[in-house]
Amino acid sequence: MTSEINHPDVLAEVTAAFARYEDALVHNKVDVLDELFWSSPHTLRYGATENLYGYDEIQAFRASRSSQGLMRELLRTAITTYGSDFATAHCEFRREGSAKIGRQSQTWVRTAQGWRVVAAHVSLMG
Amino acid sequence: MTSEINHPDVLAEVTAAFARYEDALVHNKVDVLDELFWSSPHTLRYGATENLYGYDEIQAFRASRSSQGLMRELLRTAITTYGSDFATAHCEFRREGSAKIGRQSQTWVRTAQGWRVVAAHVSLMG
Repeated sequence: MTSEINHPDVLAEVTAAFARYEDALVHNKVDVLDELFWSSPHTLRYGATENLYGYDEIQAFRASRSSQGLMRELLRTAITTYGSDFATAHCEFRREGSAKIGRQSQTWVRTAQGWRVVAAHVSLMG
Repeated sequence: MTSEINHPDVLAEVTAAFARYEDALVHNKVDVLDELFWSSPHTLRYGATENLYGYDEIQAFRASRSSQGLMRELLRTAITTYGSDFATAHCEFRREGSAKIGRQSQTWVRTAQGWRVVAAHVSLMG
Protein backbone atom coordinates (compact mmCIF):
# COMPACT_ATOMS: atom_id res chain seq x y z
CA MET A 1 0.00 0.00 0.00
CA THR A 2 1.71 3.17 -1.14
CA SER A 3 -1.16 5.47 -0.22
CA GLU A 4 -1.37 6.79 3.31
CA ILE A 5 -4.09 5.11 5.33
CA ASN A 6 -6.38 7.35 7.38
CA HIS A 7 -4.63 10.64 6.84
CA PRO A 8 -6.36 12.75 9.50
CA ASP A 9 -7.60 15.43 7.07
CA VAL A 10 -9.00 12.90 4.63
CA LEU A 11 -10.56 10.84 7.40
CA ALA A 12 -12.23 13.96 8.79
CA GLU A 13 -13.70 14.77 5.38
CA VAL A 14 -15.10 11.30 4.83
CA THR A 15 -16.39 11.08 8.38
CA ALA A 16 -18.29 14.33 7.80
CA ALA A 17 -19.68 13.05 4.50
CA PHE A 18 -20.72 9.79 6.16
CA ALA A 19 -22.49 11.71 8.96
CA ARG A 20 -24.25 13.90 6.43
CA TYR A 21 -25.44 10.81 4.59
CA GLU A 22 -26.69 9.22 7.81
CA ASP A 23 -28.64 12.33 8.76
CA ALA A 24 -30.16 12.48 5.28
CA LEU A 25 -31.07 8.80 5.40
CA VAL A 26 -32.93 8.79 8.70
CA HIS A 27 -34.72 12.06 7.87
CA ASN A 28 -35.43 11.00 4.27
CA LYS A 29 -33.72 14.05 2.76
CA VAL A 30 -33.90 12.60 -0.72
CA ASP A 31 -32.13 15.54 -2.35
CA VAL A 32 -29.09 15.05 -0.13
CA LEU A 33 -29.06 11.29 -0.71
CA ASP A 34 -29.24 11.91 -4.45
CA GLU A 35 -26.43 14.44 -4.20
CA LEU A 36 -24.14 12.08 -2.31
CA PHE A 37 -24.42 9.21 -4.77
CA TRP A 38 -22.13 9.38 -7.78
CA SER A 39 -24.12 10.40 -10.84
CA SER A 40 -22.96 7.58 -13.11
CA PRO A 41 -24.30 4.48 -14.81
CA HIS A 42 -21.56 2.60 -12.90
CA THR A 43 -22.99 3.46 -9.48
CA LEU A 44 -24.41 0.40 -7.79
CA ARG A 45 -26.50 -0.25 -4.68
CA TYR A 46 -27.41 -3.64 -3.27
CA GLY A 47 -30.24 -2.96 -0.81
CA ALA A 48 -31.97 -5.23 1.68
CA THR A 49 -34.52 -6.29 -0.93
CA GLU A 50 -33.32 -4.86 -4.26
CA ASN A 51 -30.27 -4.67 -6.54
CA LEU A 52 -29.97 -1.31 -8.26
CA TYR A 53 -27.64 -0.64 -11.18
CA GLY A 54 -26.82 2.93 -12.15
CA TYR A 55 -27.67 6.29 -10.65
CA ASP A 56 -31.09 6.42 -12.30
CA GLU A 57 -32.31 3.21 -10.68
CA ILE A 58 -31.04 4.37 -7.29
CA GLN A 59 -32.72 7.76 -7.65
CA ALA A 60 -36.03 6.16 -8.68
CA PHE A 61 -35.86 3.90 -5.62
CA ARG A 62 -35.28 6.87 -3.31
CA ALA A 63 -38.16 8.81 -4.82
CA SER A 64 -40.63 5.96 -4.29
CA ARG A 65 -39.46 4.89 -0.83
CA SER A 66 -41.68 5.25 2.21
CA SER A 67 -40.41 7.90 4.58
CA GLN A 68 -41.59 5.89 7.60
CA GLY A 69 -39.47 3.68 9.85
CA LEU A 70 -36.10 4.97 8.68
CA MET A 71 -34.72 5.76 12.15
CA ARG A 72 -31.88 3.56 13.23
CA GLU A 73 -29.17 3.29 15.83
CA LEU A 74 -25.55 2.96 14.71
CA LEU A 75 -23.78 0.19 16.63
CA ARG A 76 -20.28 0.11 15.20
CA THR A 77 -18.76 2.28 12.51
CA ALA A 78 -15.51 1.74 10.64
CA ILE A 79 -14.22 4.31 8.15
CA THR A 80 -10.90 3.87 6.33
CA THR A 81 -9.30 6.21 3.80
CA TYR A 82 -6.69 5.21 1.21
CA GLY A 83 -4.60 8.13 0.00
CA SER A 84 -6.51 11.35 -0.64
CA ASP A 85 -9.37 10.25 -2.91
CA PHE A 86 -10.73 6.86 -1.83
CA ALA A 87 -12.45 5.53 1.24
CA THR A 88 -14.66 2.80 2.63
CA ALA A 89 -17.31 3.42 5.29
CA HIS A 90 -19.04 0.62 7.14
CA CYS A 91 -21.55 0.46 9.95
CA GLU A 92 -23.68 -1.99 11.82
CA PHE A 93 -27.11 -0.68 12.77
CA ARG A 94 -30.42 -1.61 14.32
CA ARG A 95 -33.72 -0.23 13.12
CA GLU A 96 -36.38 0.86 15.57
CA GLY A 97 -38.59 -2.11 16.36
CA SER A 98 -36.25 -4.69 14.85
CA ALA A 99 -33.93 -7.12 16.62
CA LYS A 100 -31.91 -7.86 13.49
CA ILE A 101 -28.46 -6.40 12.94
CA GLY A 102 -28.11 -4.43 9.72
CA ARG A 103 -24.85 -3.78 7.91
CA GLN A 104 -24.12 -0.91 5.52
CA SER A 105 -21.05 -0.78 3.28
CA GLN A 106 -20.13 2.23 1.17
CA THR A 107 -17.22 2.93 -1.14
CA TRP A 108 -16.53 6.65 -1.46
CA VAL A 109 -14.54 8.48 -4.15
CA ARG A 110 -13.55 12.14 -4.23
CA THR A 111 -14.96 13.77 -7.36
CA ALA A 112 -14.71 17.32 -8.65
CA GLN A 113 -18.03 17.91 -6.88
CA GLY A 114 -16.92 16.38 -3.59
CA TRP A 115 -17.04 12.95 -1.97
CA ARG A 116 -19.55 10.58 -3.55
CA VAL A 117 -20.73 7.04 -2.86
CA VAL A 118 -19.85 4.93 -5.89
CA ALA A 119 -21.10 1.64 -4.47
CA ALA A 120 -23.21 0.58 -1.48
CA HIS A 121 -24.49 -2.64 0.04
CA VAL A 122 -27.07 -2.87 2.82
CA SER A 123 -28.23 -6.14 4.35
CA LEU A 124 -29.71 -7.67 7.48
CA MET A 125 -27.62 -10.37 9.07
CA GLY A 126 -29.23 -13.79 8.68
CA MET B 1 -14.07 12.47 -10.99
CA THR B 2 -10.55 13.21 -12.10
CA SER B 3 -9.47 9.56 -12.25
CA GLU B 4 -10.10 7.62 -15.41
CA ILE B 5 -12.94 5.14 -15.06
CA ASN B 6 -12.36 1.63 -16.38
CA HIS B 7 -9.00 2.16 -18.04
CA PRO B 8 -8.74 -1.07 -20.06
CA ASP B 9 -5.43 -2.19 -18.53
CA VAL B 10 -6.60 -1.59 -14.97
CA LEU B 11 -9.96 -3.21 -15.63
CA ALA B 12 -8.21 -6.28 -17.04
CA GLU B 13 -6.04 -6.55 -13.93
CA VAL B 14 -8.93 -6.32 -11.52
CA THR B 15 -11.06 -8.67 -13.61
CA ALA B 16 -8.26 -11.24 -13.40
CA ALA B 17 -7.92 -10.75 -9.65
CA PHE B 18 -11.69 -11.10 -9.23
CA ALA B 19 -11.68 -14.34 -11.27
CA ARG B 20 -8.80 -15.69 -9.22
CA TYR B 21 -10.70 -14.94 -6.04
CA GLU B 22 -13.84 -16.64 -7.36
CA ASP B 23 -11.92 -19.77 -8.29
CA ALA B 24 -10.27 -19.83 -4.86
CA LEU B 25 -13.63 -19.35 -3.14
CA VAL B 26 -15.54 -22.17 -4.81
CA HIS B 27 -12.57 -24.54 -4.48
CA ASN B 28 -11.79 -23.45 -0.92
CA LYS B 29 -8.19 -22.50 -1.70
CA VAL B 30 -7.73 -20.84 1.66
CA ASP B 31 -4.15 -19.77 0.97
CA VAL B 32 -5.24 -17.80 -2.09
CA LEU B 33 -8.17 -16.23 -0.24
CA ASP B 34 -5.82 -15.22 2.55
CA GLU B 35 -3.37 -13.81 0.02
CA LEU B 36 -6.02 -11.71 -1.71
CA PHE B 37 -7.31 -10.01 1.42
CA TRP B 38 -5.35 -7.00 2.58
CA SER B 39 -3.25 -7.91 5.60
CA SER B 40 -4.37 -5.09 7.85
CA PRO B 41 -6.40 -4.49 11.01
CA HIS B 42 -8.56 -2.19 8.83
CA THR B 43 -9.70 -4.98 6.53
CA LEU B 44 -13.37 -5.75 7.05
CA ARG B 45 -15.76 -8.45 5.88
CA TYR B 46 -19.48 -8.58 6.50
CA GLY B 47 -20.53 -12.15 5.70
CA ALA B 48 -23.96 -13.75 5.44
CA THR B 49 -23.93 -14.59 9.16
CA GLU B 50 -20.88 -12.83 10.64
CA ASN B 51 -19.16 -9.44 10.86
CA LEU B 52 -15.38 -9.73 10.81
CA TYR B 53 -13.02 -6.87 11.70
CA GLY B 54 -9.38 -7.09 10.73
CA TYR B 55 -7.36 -9.57 8.72
CA ASP B 56 -6.91 -11.95 11.67
CA GLU B 57 -10.64 -12.45 12.20
CA ILE B 58 -11.14 -13.04 8.47
CA GLN B 59 -8.29 -15.54 8.33
CA ALA B 60 -9.62 -17.43 11.36
CA PHE B 61 -13.05 -17.61 9.73
CA ARG B 62 -11.56 -19.04 6.52
CA ALA B 63 -9.56 -21.63 8.40
CA SER B 64 -12.61 -22.94 10.26
CA ARG B 65 -15.06 -22.83 7.37
CA SER B 66 -16.58 -25.99 5.95
CA SER B 67 -15.30 -26.73 2.48
CA GLN B 68 -18.69 -28.16 1.44
CA GLY B 69 -21.39 -26.39 -0.56
CA LEU B 70 -19.25 -23.51 -1.80
CA MET B 71 -20.08 -23.91 -5.49
CA ARG B 72 -22.11 -21.09 -6.93
CA GLU B 73 -23.23 -19.63 -10.22
CA LEU B 74 -22.45 -16.00 -11.01
CA LEU B 75 -25.52 -14.22 -12.36
CA ARG B 76 -24.40 -10.65 -12.93
CA THR B 77 -20.98 -9.13 -12.37
CA ALA B 78 -20.06 -5.43 -12.33
CA ILE B 79 -16.45 -4.32 -11.98
CA THR B 80 -15.47 -0.64 -12.02
CA THR B 81 -11.98 0.83 -11.69
CA TYR B 82 -11.20 4.40 -10.58
CA GLY B 83 -7.80 5.59 -11.73
CA SER B 84 -4.99 3.05 -11.47
CA ASP B 85 -5.20 1.84 -7.87
CA PHE B 86 -8.81 1.52 -6.77
CA ALA B 87 -11.74 -0.65 -7.84
CA THR B 88 -15.08 -2.11 -6.85
CA ALA B 89 -16.24 -5.59 -7.87
CA HIS B 90 -19.79 -6.77 -7.43
CA CYS B 91 -21.68 -9.90 -8.33
CA GLU B 92 -25.00 -11.56 -7.83
CA PHE B 93 -24.83 -15.31 -7.36
CA ARG B 94 -26.88 -18.40 -6.60
CA ARG B 95 -25.57 -21.28 -4.53
CA GLU B 96 -26.21 -24.86 -5.54
CA GLY B 97 -29.46 -25.99 -3.96
CA SER B 98 -30.61 -22.50 -2.97
CA ALA B 99 -33.23 -20.31 -4.61
CA LYS B 100 -32.03 -17.14 -2.89
CA ILE B 101 -30.01 -14.50 -4.69
CA GLY B 102 -26.69 -13.69 -3.07
CA ARG B 103 -24.76 -10.46 -3.50
CA GLN B 104 -21.02 -9.98 -3.06
CA SER B 105 -19.37 -6.55 -2.87
CA GLN B 106 -15.62 -6.06 -2.79
CA THR B 107 -13.46 -2.95 -2.68
CA TRP B 108 -10.01 -3.58 -4.15
CA VAL B 109 -6.85 -1.49 -3.70
CA ARG B 110 -3.54 -1.91 -5.48
CA THR B 111 -0.80 -2.54 -2.92
CA ALA B 112 2.93 -3.11 -3.34
CA GLN B 113 2.11 -6.84 -3.32
CA GLY B 114 -0.69 -6.55 -5.90
CA TRP B 115 -4.44 -6.04 -5.84
CA ARG B 116 -6.04 -6.77 -2.48
CA VAL B 117 -9.60 -6.78 -1.11
CA VAL B 118 -9.78 -4.15 1.62
CA ALA B 119 -13.48 -4.59 2.34
CA ALA B 120 -16.15 -7.12 1.43
CA HIS B 121 -19.85 -7.65 2.07
CA VAL B 122 -21.79 -10.81 1.25
CA SER B 123 -25.52 -11.21 1.83
CA LEU B 124 -28.59 -13.09 0.68
CA MET B 125 -31.40 -10.93 -0.61
CA GLY B 126 -34.36 -10.96 1.77
